[in-house]
Amino acid sequence: MSQRPAKVVFLPSGKRGEFEPGTTLLDAARTLNVDLDSVCGGRAMCGRCQVLCTEGEFAKHGISSKADHLSGRGAVETRYERQYGLAEGRRLACQACLLDDVVIDVPPDSQVHRQVIRKQAGLLDLELFPTVRLHYVEVPEPNMHNPEGDLTRLKLALEFEWGLTDLRCGVELVQDLQKILRQGEWKVTAAVYDERDIIALWPGFHDQVYGAAIDVGSTTIAVHLCDLANGKVLASSGAMNPQIRYGEDLMSRVSYVMMNPGGDREMTMSVRETIARLISDVSREIGADLHDVLDMTFVGNPVMHHLLLGIDPVELGGAPFALATDESVATSAATLKLDMNPEARVYVLPCIAGHVGADAAAMVLSARPYHDDAMTLLVDVGTNAEIVLGNREQLMACSSPTGPAFEGAQISGGQRAAPGAIDRVRIDPGTLEPRVRVIGCDEWSDSEAFDSSKTGVTGICGSGIIEVIAEMYLAGIVSTDGIIDGQLAARSERVFPNGRTYSYLLYESENVRVVVTQNDVRQIQLAKAALYAGAKLLMERMRVDHVDRIKIAGAFGSHIDTKHAMVLGLIPDCDLDNVFSVGNAAGDGARMALMDKNARVEIDRVVKRIQKIETAVEPRFQEHFINAMAIPHKIDPYAELRKKVSLPESARFQGDNVPDRRRRRSRRRSEP
Amino acid sequence: MSQRPAKVVFLPSGKRGEFEPGTTLLDAARTLNVDLDSVCGGRAMCGRCQVLCTEGEFAKHGISSKADHLSGRGAVETRYERQYGLAEGRRLACQACLLDDVVIDVPPDSQVHRQVIRKQAGLLDLELFPTVRLHYVEVPEPNMHNPEGDLTRLKLALEFEWGLTDLRCGVELVQDLQKILRQGEWKVTAAVYDERDIIALWPGFHDQVYGAAIDVGSTTIAVHLCDLANGKVLASSGAMNPQIRYGEDLMSRVSYVMMNPGGDREMTMSVRETIARLISDVSREIGADLHDVLDMTFVGNPVMHHLLLGIDPVELGGAPFALATDESVATSAATLKLDMNPEARVYVLPCIAGHVGADAAAMVLSARPYHDDAMTLLVDVGTNAEIVLGNREQLMACSSPTGPAFEGAQISGGQRAAPGAIDRVRIDPGTLEPRVRVIGCDEWSDSEAFDSSKTGVTGICGSGIIEVIAEMYLAGIVSTDGIIDGQLAARSERVFPNGRTYSYLLYESENVRVVVTQNDVRQIQLAKAALYAGAKLLMERMRVDHVDRIKIAGAFGSHIDTKHAMVLGLIPDCDLDNVFSVGNAAGDGARMALMDKNARVEIDRVVKRIQKIETAVEPRFQEHFINAMAIPHKIDPYAELRKKVSLPESARFQGDNVPDRRRRRSRRRSEP
Repeated sequence: MSQRPAKVVFLPSGKRGEFEPGTTLLDAARTLNVDLDSVCGGRAMCGRCQVLCTEGEFAKHGISSKADHLSGRGAVETRYERQYGLAEGRRLACQACLLDDVVIDVPPDSQVHRQVIRKQAGLLDLELFPTVRLHYVEVPEPNMHNPEGDLTRLKLALEFEWGLTDLRCGVELVQDLQKILRQGEWKVTAAVYDERDIIALWPGFHDQVYGAAIDVGSTTIAVHLCDLANGKVLASSGAMNPQIRYGEDLMSRVSYVMMNPGGDREMTMSVRETIARLISDVSREIGADLHDVLDMTFVGNPVMHHLLLGIDPVELGGAPFALATDESVATSAATLKLDMNPEARVYVLPCIAGHVGADAAAMVLSARPYHDDAMTLLVDVGTNAEIVLGNREQLMACSSPTGPAFEGAQISGGQRAAPGAIDRVRIDPGTLEPRVRVIGCDEWSDSEAFDSSKTGVTGICGSGIIEVIAEMYLAGIVSTDGIIDGQLAARSERVFPNGRTYSYLLYESENVRVVVTQNDVRQIQLAKAALYAGAKLLMERMRVDHVDRIKIAGAFGSHIDTKHAMVLGLIPDCDLDNVFSVGNAAGDGARMALMDKNARVEIDRVVKRIQKIETAVEPRFQEHFINAMAIPHKIDPYAELRKKVSLPESARFQGDNVPDRRRRRSRRRSEP
Repeated sequence: MSQRPAKVVFLPSGKRGEFEPGTTLLDAARTLNVDLDSVCGGRAMCGRCQVLCTEGEFAKHGISSKADHLSGRGAVETRYERQYGLAEGRRLACQACLLDDVVIDVPPDSQVHRQVIRKQAGLLDLELFPTVRLHYVEVPEPNMHNPEGDLTRLKLALEFEWGLTDLRCGVELVQDLQKILRQGEWKVTAAVYDERDIIALWPGFHDQVYGAAIDVGSTTIAVHLCDLANGKVLASSGAMNPQIRYGEDLMSRVSYVMMNPGGDREMTMSVRETIARLISDVSREIGADLHDVLDMTFVGNPVMHHLLLGIDPVELGGAPFALATDESVATSAATLKLDMNPEARVYVLPCIAGHVGADAAAMVLSARPYHDDAMTLLVDVGTNAEIVLGNREQLMACSSPTGPAFEGAQISGGQRAAPGAIDRVRIDPGTLEPRVRVIGCDEWSDSEAFDSSKTGVTGICGSGIIEVIAEMYLAGIVSTDGIIDGQLAARSERVFPNGRTYSYLLYESENVRVVVTQNDVRQIQLAKAALYAGAKLLMERMRVDHVDRIKIAGAFGSHIDTKHAMVLGLIPDCDLDNVFSVGNAAGDGARMALMDKNARVEIDRVVKRIQKIETAVEPRFQEHFINAMAIPHKIDPYAELRKKVSLPESARFQGDNVPDRRRRRSRRRSEP
């Protein structure tokens, strides 16, 4: 063994130093501030500090064999390997001692702060930097000569072994402290929040701690239980938002509170109970102790945000739609009276404005348009559409009152997206005959297998309505100004008079008859005009005439066909390859904030930077809205000159060749 | 009006600067960081910024008349004067504008951080630097173009008007925020804790905020409600500690928990309920809103401390007497489930050791021995005596098991200090006839008025027992080794045989017969030996053979005659002029911590410095104890050489001339 200091380089960080031979790799890594995980603090219990020894650039120093430069496997490491296994070439950094110069590779799964890239496309790429971390310590026992309190000795141990200083500990945990220390015979694992608060303590070595990302929607509440060590979603569950009994949509819930002062408290209690029950259910499902769920992040629209926090939402029911707070809220399960570990931490993402909530902030976080030069449009459609536009330079947000049509409400035959709902439609432009697909069945209605499916047809959901009207438009059944062409009744029985207007029969069976009425088309026109006008308003304020990328979030975004959305003029023109359905972006943002404490700092800062546009007081919004009633929408290059225009106009596109149409339109726009 | 900058000097700080003519004195004071109070922020509402204009050293610059150098009283200041009055020469600093050079005197009552010197001797001198302060602000209203949340706008106003940055606000208060802002028409007063947390909000201008200093004793709980603006005690109240039904003394309460696991929870609930009720009572008494009690400090012995905080005290019932925590605890009324404003803050003073509690820490804070070169002995006597010795250089503390005799328990005829209890005794050395005085009556028993008093005699309290045994010793009835001299039965019927020993008849009436038995003398010997041995042990560890000053705290300290205490050998020798009864030192410390946030920092730091001595594991304590059984106590210059000595010995002093005795003893000590 050489007695000169041994050089070590840690990869991928490249941090390097010289140490006395005999120093463990873990100690060297800590001294050099290398990101190397450990829960047990070097006792070969947790296996989190696994590293690989490589040669690399140290070869020039004459390293001939790894074995000569690191100590061999001792009894402790061998026991660990026998019990838990240790992949080829891997060593426990807490056991392997430096003997001579080495290059050490810290694999991603041994880093605390790391990026998790999912193999499947479309899945969330997470940065891992959990706010709650576990630290195993051996606490000096009290004796008559050293009468410091148990808490002081625990804190000294955490400082000595983990360098954690100025830790705080809530009274609730101090109440359990003495029993746990003695039960663990002075060996305990502490959960430390943000390197500052001791929030849980277990006797002995404890290796599991969970977090929950919670999306509080007006209709459903979704909970994802995650492993805080690696970001994996271990279980998910959802439930109807129990507030539905106070009103289907947000404004009827706000009205309920206006009519029943104090009614917000019932709603707050019911949503909190449901959340706690869901968390308890998913914990039980994976055999986790509810007590070990220690971190939670919440997203929701402003009304849900306020009701979750126990804030009366009535101010959100009228101008100027003032939020009680637009900052993120860091609090605890105890404060929110959630029936779980009272010390569990809560982080509620910030709201952007009175109609643009923490769900929109989460969408922004998950899409990170501010990391990019590309001008990105983010859209989340619900009763209101929340719209964010921007790039690295600037961000703007607004909300637009799309109404409930996109969710299947106020539509004849409309229903929520659920098994049995028509969500895909194709109409043959020649015969005007439709074929449909329903949620829960992979077959089209013109296949033989369709009838034998058990799902049946129960109605039509939001994405189905978008498709059927886009297809009706493409087949010439609906005109650019949204009129169902009664003359076609001569060509097909599908088109039939219905009072003073015409309707289109989409589907008929023994049990159900799904018809698209003139009013349905109007409802969708109103909804899509609101959405489009909101996007247009932001583009105008941003002084851009096109967007580079569109991301449509939410269940609505997952179901609709972006092509049909563009045919209908729901969203501004954009290369279809750059229009994405990003799924549950709000839930993804909640998970990012759960797993990465830097993401919390990031979204707090970003939300402050977002410029908020209130559509209700923007005269230009009304103009855009009127122009957007047309299908796909009216091109209005002279908008600045004209204050009001008559409704119908514009070219008509047939067939499925929307990309061509888009290119033609782009060309046209580039003309003088 | 001169247009050159006007010079201003603020006294007593001496801070000076130059300002544009027209600057208000308040603005100038703020710029110079002068300690000048204000709640209303310069709106002539609170009257806290009153100052005097003096000439002083500025005369040399040619100041001829105050009137020329400050603006005159405008309408606003005149209205304030008419409504609330303004003493001769006083000006509102927020209204008076600098015109030319001035010297401004900030009187103590206009300073936030100031010393309150009481005129009556013996009353607590307080530093004022309250942790909770009030700030009136006008908050910008929300509008459609500025969608920041109400909290953000409140924080901006507090930052703009008061320079308070990075404020936090708990969810509970955010829940009320919007109603209060609108009720106050965007003018509100905020209570800010430690320049960091917004903890209360009132519509409009609000000028009152209260604090409570709470002494949780094993027997009684005392609450002092204070005005946080000036430190005045507005009302006080006390109640029996309801835990008494679980056991009279501490150890029987700990035993109760040992026998009834979970029994600590009942005790915690009962003490918290009593505290909340007392605070509610005193608030009602002075017409204060319970909601406005926003800061609380608590002191108590370790068992009371733990039970208040909801910590099982069983570890305090056996070696090594480990505290759950020895640090101060900063928490909230909500966490302690006190039925009052949940945002009210709680500060529990630190404990020193397993037997030396937050009450002892408060005693240390109120006596501040560490500010001084004089070697000071602090003593608080209860079932245990808590003893602290030290000066600027060093501090030591221990606890000594005096038992309950000093509180009148385990003494024939003993009772608590209450009306009817004998607390003063004189015995004529010639006739051996006693005269007594009782609590609740100012007459001695040999006066004619005594019999007609309504109090009657019910028993003898702790201080009475000290006196009677000291007087019996001085009269020769009790020997230095604590034996009642049976031979005196021949001289006086007061001395009479009682089994195999003799007793002394102190008082007899139709209803009651108060006798001092041989066992009573033994009990007092044991108690005083414990106390003396504890003090002696600390002196020995501190390597001092005398103390410069003795302060005896608590109800016991207030009742006992220090001279008799020294006759009996309760406390080490000390010039009687330097032996003080300091009253409720624990309560005083609680009040100091309530009114002065620096005091909290100070005692947190001091307690860490105190060296803790555990009497139970100190062999020398046993030796001191045995030597101290004698009356007054055994002088033991050879203690280091002898491991065990026989009991009786030592000179005998008669009469009342204790100072002489002390001097003789000192002389003797200074001999080789």
